Amino acid sequence: MTESQSESPSEPESTPSRRALIGWGGAGLALGAAAAGGAVAMTRTGDDIAPTAAEAGAAVDFHGAHQAGIATPVQDRLHFAAFDVTTDDRAAFVRMLKDWTLAARRMTAGAAVGEGAYGGLAEAPPDDTGEALGLKPSRLTLTIGFGPSLFEKFDLADRRPEALVDLPQFAGDNLDRNRSGGDLCVQACADDPQVAVHAIRNLARIGFGKVVIKWSQLGFGKTSSTTPDAQTPRNLMGFKDGTRNIAGTETGRLKKFVWVDEKDGPGWMTGGSYLVARRIRMHIETWDRTSLQEQEDIFGRDKGEGAPVGKAKERDEPFLKAMLPDAHVRLAHPESNHGATILRRGYSFTDGTDGLGRLDAGLFFLAYQRDVREGFIRIQRNLALDSLNEYIQHVGSAVFAVPPGVRDQDDWWGSTLFSGEA
Amino acid sequence: MTESQSESPSEPESTPSRRALIGWGGAGLALGAAAAGGAVAMTRTGDDIAPTAAEAGAAVDFHGAHQAGIATPVQDRLHFAAFDVTTDDRAAFVRMLKDWTLAARRMTAGAAVGEGAYGGLAEAPPDDTGEALGLKPSRLTLTIGFGPSLFEKFDLADRRPEALVDLPQFAGDNLDRNRSGGDLCVQACADDPQVAVHAIRNLARIGFGKVVIKWSQLGFGKTSSTTPDAQTPRNLMGFKDGTRNIAGTETGRLKKFVWVDEKDGPGWMTGGSYLVARRIRMHIETWDRTSLQEQEDIFGRDKGEGAPVGKAKERDEPFLKAMLPDAHVRLAHPESNHGATILRRGYSFTDGTDGLGRLDAGLFFLAYQRDVREGFIRIQRNLALDSLNEYIQHVGSAVFAVPPGVRDQDDWWGSTLFSGEA
Repeated sequence: MTESQSESPSEPESTPSRRALIGWGGAGLALGAAAAGGAVAMTRTGDDIAPTAAEAGAAVDFHGAHQAGIATPVQDRLHFAAFDVTTDDRAAFVRMLKDWTLAARRMTAGAAVGEGAYGGLAEAPPDDTGEALGLKPSRLTLTIGFGPSLFEKFDLADRRPEALVDLPQFAGDNLDRNRSGGDLCVQACADDPQVAVHAIRNLARIGFGKVVIKWSQLGFGKTSSTTPDAQTPRNLMGFKDGTRNIAGTETGRLKKFVWVDEKDGPGWMTGGSYLVARRIRMHIETWDRTSLQEQEDIFGRDKGEGAPVGKAKERDEPFLKAMLPDAHVRLAHPESNHGATILRRGYSFTDGTDGLGRLDAGLFFLAYQRDVREGFIRIQRNLALDSLNEYIQHVGSAVFAVPPGVRDQDDWWGSTLFSGEA
Repeated sequence: MTESQSESPSEPESTPSRRALIGWGGAGLALGAAAAGGAVAMTRTGDDIAPTAAEAGAAVDFHGAHQAGIATPVQDRLHFAAFDVTTDDRAAFVRMLKDWTLAARRMTAGAAVGEGAYGGLAEAPPDDTGEALGLKPSRLTLTIGFGPSLFEKFDLADRRPEALVDLPQFAGDNLDRNRSGGDLCVQACADDPQVAVHAIRNLARIGFGKVVIKWSQLGFGKTSSTTPDAQTPRNLMGFKDGTRNIAGTETGRLKKFVWVDEKDGPGWMTGGSYLVARRIRMHIETWDRTSLQEQEDIFGRDKGEGAPVGKAKERDEPFLKAMLPDAHVRLAHPESNHGATILRRGYSFTDGTDGLGRLDAGLFFLAYQRDVREGFIRIQRNLALDSLNEYIQHVGSAVFAVPPGVRDQDDWWGSTLFSGEA
C-alpha cells in the first residue's frame, strides 16, 4: 500500500485521517486481499494535482469542503445516472442517503460495499455485486446532485435554491424526456469503466424501493481537462474544445465561477455547485463529409494543433474578431457572454447505431457553475447562432443542485438539506 | 520509438519488415508528431506474449498468417460493428476492402487514415476524422468477418464454407433482429476506447455508399483472458468465467480448436476461424437479490476466488460431479461436450437503462472456433439446461467466417475469397 502525502495543510477537511484510511484498507483486506483492490493510495481531494502514471489506480479522498468529481482532475471514464424517487417516506429516503454515503465512502477507497461481501451469510445476497473485486480504486469519484423535481417532494419546496432554475427551451433543442430530468443524480467518474459501472449499479441496488434509475449514460472518453497545461482531449468532431477550462488549481476562478458562496444562499448549498447535463448528439456522418476549411471556420481553431484562428498554439489567446461571427470559440468565449465561465467535464459517448446506420454518438456535456443563470443559460442562449448547430442537436437535458462535500466519517450526502432528520 | 524483437523466427509472415514499420511511423510523423501517437512500438502478432505496462500503448502487427485480434492478448475495450452491403457492384466492394485494408494497416500502427489528414486540401473533407490524433496505437486490432448473407451476393454462393452454418434457434433465445446478423463485421479491440471507436467510424466513413452499419456494440470491460495464468476478469455477475480459455501461447489448442486447417476447406479459409457473437442481457437486478450460495451453486465456483466447487484455487482442475447437474461450469466444460472447446473474447456492456429502470447490461459474447458446429453450437445446446438461464437472455446473434491474416503490404482483407478480382 502506498499513500501520497497531502500537500495542503490548509484544507484539513479534505484529508482523511490515516486511521480512517487504514480502516477502509483493513476492511478490504478482511474480505480477502483482492477486495482491497491493490494499492489503496489516497490523493488530494483533487483540486491541485494532476494524476501521474503511478497514481492512475489510486483513490481520491471522498471527504472535503466540496464534493470530489468537480475540480478533481478529470478521470477517463464516466457512468452517470439520474434517479427518480419512488417513496414518499422522507425518513426512508434519508436512511438511503446515509446508506449511499457509507457505500460511496468504501467504494471510492477501493473496498467492497459491505464488510460481509464474500465472508457474509451464504443464505443472503452478497453485500457487493462483486465485479469490481480485485480492481484498483481507479480514482473513482461519486458526486450527488438534487434535481428541481425533488423539491416538490418531502416538503422541500421552500428549500429549493433560486439558482436551481428549470432550463428554458433553447433554439434547436429536441429533448427526449426519457433522457432528461431526474429527482437526483450520481456522477461516477473513474479511470476504469468497470469501477464506475459497479458504483452506480450498487447504489441502484441499495436504493431499491426508494429510487429507480430514470436514465443513465456511459461516457468512454473525456473531452475536457481540469489539469493545468494538459493537452485538451479531442471530442468526436476531432477538435480540442474547452482549452480555457477552469483548472482544479485555479482557486480564484473556482471560487468566482464554481463554488456556491455563503452569501449566495441558501445556506445548505454553501460549498456546493450547480450541474447542467446535456446529451448532445453529433451528426457524425455529415460532419465527416465537411471540408477541413469549413470545420476549422466553424470552430474558430485549426484541427491539428487546436490553435485559435491566426495563432500558432492551442493556448495562445484567441483574437475573436479574426473568427467568423458565428464561430463556436467566439460565441462561447467569456468576452461574448459578459464574462460567463463554466467548468466543463464532458465525455464522448457512442451508444451503438440508430435505425439508419448512423452512429448514435456525441458529447455528454457536463458543466459545473455557481449559478446556472449566470453560467450555462447565458452561454447557451448565445450559442443559438453557433454555426456548429448544423451538426449537433441537444437531445437530453437535466439540472441539479450539487450539495457541499461530506465533511467527515459522520457526515452524509444531503445532510445540510435534510438536517434535523433521523 | 521502441521495437520488440520477434521471438518466433518460424513465423516470418507475422513480423513486419523494419522498413515497413519505419514507413508507417514516418507517415505518422509527416502528419505532425501527434499523428504518430508517441511510441509506435510493434509487438508480436499477439499469440504468445502478455502485454506489459510499457507495451500498453504499443502497436500490434497487422500482418500475419492469422488475423490479429483472435489469439492476441485481450485488450481492455471493444467496438464491434456489423455491416450490410448496399452495392451490387462487386468491383466497388473489392476496392472498398482494399481501401479498408490500407486504413486498418495505418490505424493499427497508430497513424491517421490518410497521408493528407491535416496537410491535405482545405477544400476537401479530412482523410481522417481526427479524434484519435495524439493517442497511442493502444494495441488496436481490427478483425474482419463475412456473414452467411454475404455469400448470397456477388456470386459467392459456391464459396460459402460448410462450417459457416446459420445458427439454430436455441432454447431461451429472444433475438432482436436489429442486433443480429450482418453481411460482414469488424471487431475493433484496443486499450483506449476512443481508438476503437475511431477505427470503426473511419471504416464506416470509407465504406459510405458500399456498406452501412447494421448494428454496433461497445464493450467496456474484458471478461476473458487469452494470456496464460492471468487472472480471469470478472463478468457483471461478479464471477470469473472462462478460466480454462485457450491462451494465445497454446499453439496446440489453437491449431486444434481455433484455426481452420487446409484439409478442412474451403481453401480460402485456411488460417482463418469462425466467430460467433451473442449479445447476452443479464437480469442484473434479479441476480443481485439472489443469495451468495445460490449464485455459487449456479456457476459451480465460489465468488471470491473463483475456485471450482470443493477446490481452493481458480485454476484447480474442476471435479464436475461435485457440482449440481445444471451448474454452468459443469455444462460448459469440454468433458460435458465431447471435448468442444472455443476461444472466448467477450466484453461486458452497459447501454444505459431500459424503460423500467433496469440497467441494459450484460455480456457481449465473442467466441472463435475452427468449426461452429463442433464448437459453439454443441456447447450452447448443452447449456439449454443451464440454471444460469433464469438470469440471462440471448438477445442478439451473429456468425461470421473470419478469413486468414493479411500476409504483407500488398495483400488485403478478403483477397483469398475474392481472388482474381481487380
